[in-house]
Amino acid sequence: MYSHEELYTIFSEHFKDQSFSRDPKELYEPIIYALSQKGKRIRPILALMACDLFGEDIQKALPQAVALELLHNFTLIHDDIMDQSPMRHGKDTVFKKWSPGTAILAGDTLYVLAYRYATHADKNILPDILYTFNETALEACEGQQKDLNFERKESITKEDYLEMSRMKTAVLFGASLKIGAIIAHASQKDADLLAGFGTNIGLGFQLMDDLLDLYGEEEIFGKKTGIDIIENKKTFLFVSAIERADEATKEKLRSYYRDGEMEPQQKIKAVEAIFDKLNIQQITQQAIKDYYNKALEQLNQIDSPDANKEMLKRLAYMLIYRKK
Amino acid sequence: MYSHEELYTIFSEHFKDQSFSRDPKELYEPIIYALSQKGKRIRPILALMACDLFGEDIQKALPQAVALELLHNFTLIHDDIMDQSPMRHGKDTVFKKWSPGTAILAGDTLYVLAYRYATHADKNILPDILYTFNETALEACEGQQKDLNFERKESITKEDYLEMSRMKTAVLFGASLKIGAIIAHASQKDADLLAGFGTNIGLGFQLMDDLLDLYGEEEIFGKKTGIDIIENKKTFLFVSAIERADEATKEKLRSYYRDGEMEPQQKIKAVEAIFDKLNIQQITQQAIKDYYNKALEQLNQIDSPDANKEMLKRLAYMLIYRKK
Repeated sequence: MYSHEELYTIFSEHFKDQSFSRDPKELYEPIIYALSQKGKRIRPILALMACDLFGEDIQKALPQAVALELLHNFTLIHDDIMDQSPMRHGKDTVFKKWSPGTAILAGDTLYVLAYRYATHADKNILPDILYTFNETALEACEGQQKDLNFERKESITKEDYLEMSRMKTAVLFGASLKIGAIIAHASQKDADLLAGFGTNIGLGFQLMDDLLDLYGEEEIFGKKTGIDIIENKKTFLFVSAIERADEATKEKLRSYYRDGEMEPQQKIKAVEAIFDKLNIQQITQQAIKDYYNKALEQLNQIDSPDANKEMLKRLAYMLIYRKK
Repeated sequence: MYSHEELYTIFSEHFKDQSFSRDPKELYEPIIYALSQKGKRIRPILALMACDLFGEDIQKALPQAVALELLHNFTLIHDDIMDQSPMRHGKDTVFKKWSPGTAILAGDTLYVLAYRYATHADKNILPDILYTFNETALEACEGQQKDLNFERKESITKEDYLEMSRMKTAVLFGASLKIGAIIAHASQKDADLLAGFGTNIGLGFQLMDDLLDLYGEEEIFGKKTGIDIIENKKTFLFVSAIERADEATKEKLRSYYRDGEMEPQQKIKAVEAIFDKLNIQQITQQAIKDYYNKALEQLNQIDSPDANKEMLKRLAYMLIYRKK
């Protein structure tokens, strides 16, 4: 079985060999820029690892792994325009460096390229792969719309937030594994279990994202903490606090998130004090642990030798219990 | 053989029966709005007519016909953002009525939906269909980028313009016919001939678009003429004029297209006077005729009874020699 690190290297080498340079250069320069940013390449690694789990040659899953990475990057480029995010991985986003128009078209093109790679599969499994691909992309779009809606909505429940995160982030983790399983001719049942495993990992991953944003150790995390609070983002921490707070605290918390004038560090401190009083850090850690355990339960039910599952377990642990 | 009018009705009924309403409504309302605009539905009609030409049941081509119409609408929604076009078919564009963010996401979703329909095909022909679909979508993106580049470029040749129009508009005409032919199990040679026929019709269609914008009869055309000149659009008329003009006229024409202050009606008159001196109307009419004839040549070579080709000939004539 390949380790996460080995698959990262194999995929990175393969990805580097793909040529994304065509004419006109005004279109492909931003694409190459976006793809050359340092990413964790989680989705391709998940696809390759799923393929490996069922004993299939991972080379067969490489086109799909590329497709998944392109699909992911397409969502990043378009989301950054909608969210007006100027930076990603410490560099200008595509829309910032070029223009919104360029970023729209670069994203569209990446998405077409993703499909081009996705269709490189045996025709007997192609319908299954594309079905998974399409449904996942559709849920990602719907999840992003829900996320945009949240900005204008005050009363978001924990369930709303988790459903949005499932659609926007977690299903693509699940789909990556499922596509790897389909390529390896796993049974429908095992493919679905693996998708469930991935979705739970994806949710745990997202919650850890929210947690680290405030409680990460800046030196390890590599970014300033508290950004979500400054940007009034309704994360898992926020919706959990709203769920547990009494009316007065709820109103205080909401007023902080409405306030555009408050001094950033003061705002972080004030919100953090409420979170601490409500035990939000522990609650989030527990929720993450629950997703991790749910994921492992599903992995355990898969019909494959336990030893083969070791790498997926390690990857899941690493993705969830990370410090940055 | 079905006539153009019959296929329009069949497709419209089928299209109306498709449900595009899912959750969240903030995403699907703009999609339903865009799809309910009056369109000519050219691409679906081409796909159905190609299927009919080779004697296949047109019902089999309906999912692909829907896919092509969705793909077309995806490009319209995104192009309207990039081109900052506030109106289409006399109504607000999606980005104008909602926001650029909503229009980006609505377009993305339409594209996913297009693929969903495109995959509804027998697995033996699916790879061929998707290959055609992908390459066409990629060329449409590249064509749009070329079009955007033209805004900033002064020296565009006629060849540049025709290549851009081929990619942005004409290949989708060709691909629609080709996909219909693939569904009807036409030979590779006939499918390619039909694609060539469609591409030439598409180019003729685009040139007629350019021609009508200035020389159309406003009462029949239904829109004000001369808009392309006011918007400094480098159409076939403009690039042909630049090709034929002497240095002094060239400079005059370019200066008009740089001038943002000129009174619109005066500007149209001044440019039209140059076009008339250079015989641009006749030259464009001749170019359109040449594309029409080239298209018919390709149609004639297709291995199918002449009587079966009658409807495609009539449609081609109608698309090219239209008055609005």
